[in-house]
Amino acid sequence: MKIILVGASGTIGKAVDAALSPRHEIVRVGSSGGDFRADIGDPDAIESLFEHVGAFDALVCTAGKVHFGPFEAFTPEQYDLGLQNKLMGQVGLVMAGLKRIGAGGSFTLTSGLLNDDPIPAGVSAAMVNGALEGFVRAAAIAMPRGIRINLVSPTVIEESLPAYGPFFPGTKAVPAAEAALGYVKSVEGAQTGRVYRIGWSRDT
Amino acid sequence: MKIILVGASGTIGKAVDAALSPRHEIVRVGSSGGDFRADIGDPDAIESLFEHVGAFDALVCTAGKVHFGPFEAFTPEQYDLGLQNKLMGQVGLVMAGLKRIGAGGSFTLTSGLLNDDPIPAGVSAAMVNGALEGFVRAAAIAMPRGIRINLVSPTVIEESLPAYGPFFPGTKAVPAAEAALGYVKSVEGAQTGRVYRIGWSRDT
Repeated sequence: MKIILVGASGTIGKAVDAALSPRHEIVRVGSSGGDFRADIGDPDAIESLFEHVGAFDALVCTAGKVHFGPFEAFTPEQYDLGLQNKLMGQVGLVMAGLKRIGAGGSFTLTSGLLNDDPIPAGVSAAMVNGALEGFVRAAAIAMPRGIRINLVSPTVIEESLPAYGPFFPGTKAVPAAEAALGYVKSVEGAQTGRVYRIGWSRDT
Repeated sequence: MKIILVGASGTIGKAVDAALSPRHEIVRVGSSGGDFRADIGDPDAIESLFEHVGAFDALVCTAGKVHFGPFEAFTPEQYDLGLQNKLMGQVGLVMAGLKRIGAGGSFTLTSGLLNDDPIPAGVSAAMVNGALEGFVRAAAIAMPRGIRINLVSPTVIEESLPAYGPFFPGTKAVPAAEAALGYVKSVEGAQTGRVYRIGWSRDT
């Protein structure tokens, strides 16, 4: 398959690259490197990306910016970063990619545990992750031409513990290679509308 | 209690009014009527609302606009309506209201079942409802001064079946008076960070 990997130079992206590249052609997209440079918060850059790449079979996005900070001081601009980048950036990849993805292709987006397992600094991440879950479930039953869509929702990543560990007391971490399993299942499997929770379970 | 009810003239709002007004002072807010006119998509109107009302004990919002339409044709502007109105309109009520709500007060927002029980025309509603669930869970553990926040997620409302029924095949409806129970529990109870699903259960 020809797979567009957005966020290829990130911690999770590199693990997804390692897991998929032995069997597939990977088009690596990053905000600061890779085969193509694009920030998902820039709709024009996304359009250029698809024009550049042409037809493809799967898109995986492991990128997305969101602000973390004290709840009472959160500004509309800080909420907007997550909405325009991690949320609508990923949704925009799907909406623009729909025109060029092959029949039976797949989209795989990334959220995270904070909508169900929140931290005080993570109101925006919680909002965005919840939005992605709802979007993926609804989009899955509205997709044309047998196109699938799933979401990978990893716990905190072991390789990121030096930077993010203090925000996640008592939270089990997994190596990026384990998170990558969710992307492989989404791309090479047959399921759609699923949320693959990696390293954590939803509190029902 | 002095309770601000945003969406007071809507189908659910009227039922919440009927359930709470025998025991509380209700400040009724609507986009086209009530004690105060404001559309939650207009941050300036929200600021004026709180200046006008002054101190209060609880805020309930049953208002929020979102676009329904075919998935492949969804535009950025159509997604934006739901994000700016039903999502950030309600979040904006919380962020602005925080400065004036009394200690131990409560916020109660409204979502709906479509993030877990989707329909093809409801990608934006699914996104917004999921975002509200994540936001409420995270905000609940970040609230100062014992302030609480909950979300009511009703199934389709019986009184709205003539307008919306065809979009919800096989979906159990409840009367608005039953949905109102969730708001009463949130306002008069002691729980926080909860999603009160009225007339439906999440598929775990």
